[in-house]
Order: sequence, then structure tokens, then C-alpha cells
Amino acid sequence: MPAMRRHYALNGLRLLHSTARPGAAAKPAPGGEHAGIRAATLQTTLTDSPKPIVPKEKLVFGHTFSDHMLAIEWTAGGGWGRPQIKPYGPLQLDPSCSVFHYAFECFEGLKAYRDAQGKLRLFRPDRNMARLNNSAARLHLPQVDGAEVIECIKELLRVDKRWVPEGQGYSLYLRPTLISTENTLGVHRANSAMLYVITSPCGPYFPTGFKAVSLYCDETNVRAWPGGVGNRKLGANYAPSIGPQAEAESKGYQQVLWTIGEDHELMEVGTMNLFVLWRNDAGELELVTPPLDGTILPGVTRESILELARGWGEFAVSERKVSMKQVAKASNEGRLLEVFGAGTACVVTPVHRIHFQGRDYDIPLDPAHPESQAGPIAARIYKTLLAIQYGDTPSKWSVVVD
Amino acid sequence: MPAMRRHYALNGLRLLHSTARPGAAAKPAPGGEHAGIRAATLQTTLTDSPKPIVPKEKLVFGHTFSDHMLAIEWTAGGGWGRPQIKPYGPLQLDPSCSVFHYAFECFEGLKAYRDAQGKLRLFRPDRNMARLNNSAARLHLPQVDGAEVIECIKELLRVDKRWVPEGQGYSLYLRPTLISTENTLGVHRANSAMLYVITSPCGPYFPTGFKAVSLYCDETNVRAWPGGVGNRKLGANYAPSIGPQAEAESKGYQQVLWTIGEDHELMEVGTMNLFVLWRNDAGELELVTPPLDGTILPGVTRESILELARGWGEFAVSERKVSMKQVAKASNEGRLLEVFGAGTACVVTPVHRIHFQGRDYDIPLDPAHPESQAGPIAARIYKTLLAIQYGDTPSKWSVVVD
Repeated sequence: MPAMRRHYALNGLRLLHSTARPGAAAKPAPGGEHAGIRAATLQTTLTDSPKPIVPKEKLVFGHTFSDHMLAIEWTAGGGWGRPQIKPYGPLQLDPSCSVFHYAFECFEGLKAYRDAQGKLRLFRPDRNMARLNNSAARLHLPQVDGAEVIECIKELLRVDKRWVPEGQGYSLYLRPTLISTENTLGVHRANSAMLYVITSPCGPYFPTGFKAVSLYCDETNVRAWPGGVGNRKLGANYAPSIGPQAEAESKGYQQVLWTIGEDHELMEVGTMNLFVLWRNDAGELELVTPPLDGTILPGVTRESILELARGWGEFAVSERKVSMKQVAKASNEGRLLEVFGAGTACVVTPVHRIHFQGRDYDIPLDPAHPESQAGPIAARIYKTLLAIQYGDTPSKWSVVVD
Repeated sequence: MPAMRRHYALNGLRLLHSTARPGAAAKPAPGGEHAGIRAATLQTTLTDSPKPIVPKEKLVFGHTFSDHMLAIEWTAGGGWGRPQIKPYGPLQLDPSCSVFHYAFECFEGLKAYRDAQGKLRLFRPDRNMARLNNSAARLHLPQVDGAEVIECIKELLRVDKRWVPEGQGYSLYLRPTLISTENTLGVHRANSAMLYVITSPCGPYFPTGFKAVSLYCDETNVRAWPGGVGNRKLGANYAPSIGPQAEAESKGYQQVLWTIGEDHELMEVGTMNLFVLWRNDAGELELVTPPLDGTILPGVTRESILELARGWGEFAVSERKVSMKQVAKASNEGRLLEVFGAGTACVVTPVHRIHFQGRDYDIPLDPAHPESQAGPIAARIYKTLLAIQYGDTPSKWSVVVD
């Protein structure tokens, strides 16, 4: 694993902690044209005014940020510059930068977990780096060497270790973000860009146990389409979702169920991938999720759930198209067992109701325990993945920040 | 017209030129919660280091910016703040701002022209303001009072008048931009935002007369979709177009012809609206452009061309769906007369060739003058609109900055 191979570089890194004042200009990387990111050249400038830690009970997702950030600048002529860990602070960007006008931006979301031994762990960060490159390619933004970025992120975590809250469900959310810094108004590829990583401590998605949500199947708005960019984690996919989300809420539902086409094929739920557990038309117990046909996001949690469930071998596991009409029919015939969303923030979010074409379809969740807010398979997936993420179950998916 | 009604406010504005140092904090508007934009409260802080004017022959679109910018901040609690004209300079934004992550951004493009009397003129700026509000609404960003913003823009033009180059085809490009400044990571509506306007002097799109372009009909990528946001001027529509544009160029064509569906219905060309002049199936001479069905941008130039051509009454003028298959058939049968793009930057861009499904379709442009780079209708529209924009032909579309 790259994490191990590059350990020698990390020891060297600590010598690079600099006493340069915040805001001092970064030196160009020695690599010259088309230089890659090199974690071994990382320079750290520590804050001289560390912030007080917010008590973990008071955390609101994405509202609190740690003391430092990672930033790596890129130019078409010079490639990637020297990675910088520096005090968390504002970006200074020309108002003509194409990130403000043409949405030249993509991002990732992953978490750092504190295990029972106090060690920090990441969950499949290589998957986030691969997806970041896939997003960047679609925008002609530069590619990164994922292993090198992960090394830089590990160092950021060492520097801000005190910001990773303790306890099951608590974590430090990491937000790698790649933006164009090109400061001209033509619509063309960027000649300069910046990758930065900010981190935000967060609490459990379900602080008092699962809470199932209701979905509104939107028949007007479409999140993504064939030939579009729904399979890339671009900023462009998110702002347009706010209106439909507000509309769903105004109708008394918590999330949008995104579908496409005349048959209302299932796509995603809110900003999560979607899973259905049912007895299918052939009478077979099946966990099904929409296929990666270019219109849905290839979630890391989605991929992990598929691998887990296939490993269990207890029911069919499928990536195939499923329409809301089929789901409604299964519900009418008592064959719909569980529906849940899957994503980094929540791991799984059980669904107890779907509104479709004027009717509410209720989902039993767990008939053996009517008061339960999660079906047994969703709950089992949740437990299994958390045990891996927090290091209680050994797994190659969990990468220790040593 | 609002421009006249508010003239009294403008005289007052000149007294507001302040001697505050650049970067001084803006005072909140006195309007309290949900305050609208009030041009009468505009505050101007002049630069103490004016830049040298770039010789107009050396201008490259969107590379040079004038001395000042307009900025108006908004908060959910306080509404719009006091409009500020201030020295052009970088934005300072928290790295968590949702404009960097979720593409909470929309913009407009319009131009200021210097007429034969030396007066500055805008072309239908009310249309840009209406479209800005339409874009903002889709993102749950705040609405503006267009007439008030136009008054602020006029003052910006007075302050930077020396930046408006002289001569037919030269202009000062204006870029109103509305971004979220919300500095939390949840995907939800913004609680703070900023409208700013930067200006960039630019030369004629065709410095040495028309130059017709070739189009590549993209059969893989789709710009927009029913239920999507193709009819709003959101950043989200632009970055994803870079890849297809690069691909078209790599195949030897200059712009992408965007189509949709099995029949390849025409949508847009590059970042322009599209017009076709042909003898249609019924043998009728017809100027046709795709309808505003939610998937294409409602261009100000498009709307103006339709109004002009309808006023001429010399041929049918239609907004209806046309497929690339129909255009190819018309070309084969010698019925295809002209194809051109239309937009603020170029007014019109003639098309001389379209690549579709492995074949090039050549467009005669002007058979009477084989060397011509524009068809007679495109050339006539261009001349007519320029005469209005530069004030040579009186028109209610041209708004004088008095």
C-alpha cells in the first residue's frame, strides 16, 4: 500500500515545520514543468492562534473548521507547486476567476476516525482520489497523484489531531476541493488551479439512533441525464438541487427521490445513492441499486455496501435499473422490504415513506420491531461499516494514519 | 423607463464619492431586514493607483479589467447592503464558501458602447437583470431590483468611462456575477451572497470582417435536459462544456453543436443560440430557432433577432424544434441557406460547415458572393443590431448612460 511505502517521507516531513509567518509566499516546487504533487516537499506553517475546540455535543455539520488547511497550487506551465499546510484562512481570488463564473470546481468528502487505541484512520481514501481525478478530467482540471495527496492529508491530520473528536459516530470530515484560479473571462480550460483540503469535526448523523426519512419523488426536476455529468462530483450537480429539495420539504418530505424517464427509473436520494431490498418479480430476495450508467455518483459507501453484501452471499445483489413504478407495485404486493440511502455523511439513512404520483408508499422497515427506525439489513450494514471505519474489525479498507 | 425616473438619484450619487481608504468596511444599509438594493445609497471609493489603458488593438477578450468594480453584499437577515464602487481587487472568501463546492453562482454578460457623440450606451440591460433574477431564483439566491442595479452600473460606467474603447465593434464588457458566500459545508440555501460587477474592455469579435466557423455535432455529450437548468445562466452549465469543446477542436472543428434526443434536435452552438434560414418542407422561406422549452438559454440577442426579423415581415420567423436530421436533409436538397450563432459577444457568428454522423455538411452562406464569410441575413442582422447598440439608429433598446 502506498501508505506504507511512503512512510519514510513522512518522518522527513516533520523537519519541514517552518517558523515562517502566516501568509508568507510559497516557494515554487523544484520539479519544473508539469511537476507532480510531492508530499516529501510539504511545508508546514503552524498557526500562532489555535482556536478553542468546540464541545462535541455542540457540533453542527460543516460549521466548525480546524486550525489548518492543506493547499497546493498548480499552473499549466509549472505543474503542481509545493504542498503547504498553513493556518485555516480566507482564499484571495481575483473576481474574474472562472470558479466564480463557470463552476470550474469539484470536490470529495471523506472522514478521519479515532479508533479505540487513539489512532486516526481513513476509510478507502484511494477511492476518493480516483474519483477526484475523474471529476477533474471532465473539467480539464489537473490530475493528482492520489497517494501523494493522501500522504499530505495524513500530515494535516497529525497537525490537527486534537480536532478529531472521540467516540463512535464522531469524526473529522475532510473536504478536498479543486478549483480553477484562472483569472480571465473566456470559457476555456484553466491555466491555474488550486487543490485545498479543509477539515471539520462532526458528530454522528443519527445522534439518538436511526431516524428514517420520507422521500418525495420529483416528477419535474431531473438531477442528471445521459451525456451529462451526474457521475462526477462536480459543484455543478449540487446548487441546482436546492430548489427541488426546498419544494420537497414544503410538501412535508425530507429528501428528494431523483428519477429519470417516463418509467421514473430510480437514480439517487438527496445527495446519496439509493438501495432497495425486496422480493423481486421472480420471488427472489434481492438488494438492488441503480447501475453506474453515467448518471449517478459512484459512491464509496455504495461500492463498499455492494462488496459487503456480495460477501455475505445471503441474497441476490444487483446493479440494475429499477423504476419507481416497480417499487410502487412491490409495495402494493407486500414485497418491498427496505429502502435506504447510502453516503459518507450517514453511512446509511433508512427510508420509511415515498411519495409518488399523489400517493404515499409506506415501507415497513422492520415488521418484527414496529418501533424500529431501520430495517435489519440497513442496520447490519451500518454496524459492519462503522466497525471497519473505527478499526474494531480489521480491514484493508481502513488506513491508519501512523 | 426606470433609467429616466431615477435620474434625480444619480445626481445625488456624485456627492457620495468618498475618500475612505480602499478596503474600508462597508456600512450596513439602513433598510434593515430584507432591504432591497438602493442605488441612492451607493458609496464610491476611487482607486489611488489607476492602471494604464491597454491599447485597443491589443485587447484579448476577458483579460483586461478596468480600475473599479461594483459590489453589493446580502445576508438572509439583513437583506442587501449598501452598494459599493471600489477599486478592482481580489475577493477574500472562506475556503468553505459554497460557491467553491456547490456552484452557487450565476452571471450575466452585457456591453457598454461609446456612441458617435461620445455618450455611453447599454443594450437592453433590463433583459439581463430579469434573467439574473431567473437564474438566482433557481439557486435560491436573492432577487435584485434590476432598475436599481442598472443605476449602480451606470455610475460604475461614469467612474470608469475612460475604459470604454472608441470605435465600431469596441465595447466595455460587463459581467454581473452573483455568488453565495455562505461559509458552511451543508448543501442548503445560502444565508449570505454577493453581487458584483466587473468590466473588461474588448475589441470586435471579427476584427477583419466575418469569419464563419465550423461545428461538430456532439452525439455523446448533452448540454442540458428537460427538468434541468439549461435555461438559466448558471455557472453549472459552463464548466462541463469544456471537454466537448476541446474534443470538437481536436477533430478540426471550432464549436460544438449541441443537440438532444434520437433525432438530434438542435439546442445551442458553443455558448450561443442557434438560427437556421432555410426553405422549409413546405417550400416557405423561414428563419427558425429552437423554442424556449427550458433546455436552452433565453438569449437577449436571440430575442432581439426574432423581434427584428418579425418586424421586417419578409419571411416566416419561427421558434420551434428542428432536428439535425432535418437540417441535413435540407442541405442535401439545396434548401439550407444560412446557419448562425447569436450572442452578446459576437452578435452573430456565421456557420459554414456542420459535421454530423461522419459527414460534413457545407453551408453556402452567400452564393452570390462565394468569398463571403456571412450570409446576407446574418450580415443584415449584424449591421442592424450594431447600429442600434452604437446609437446610430434610434431605438428604445439602447439605454443612454447620461
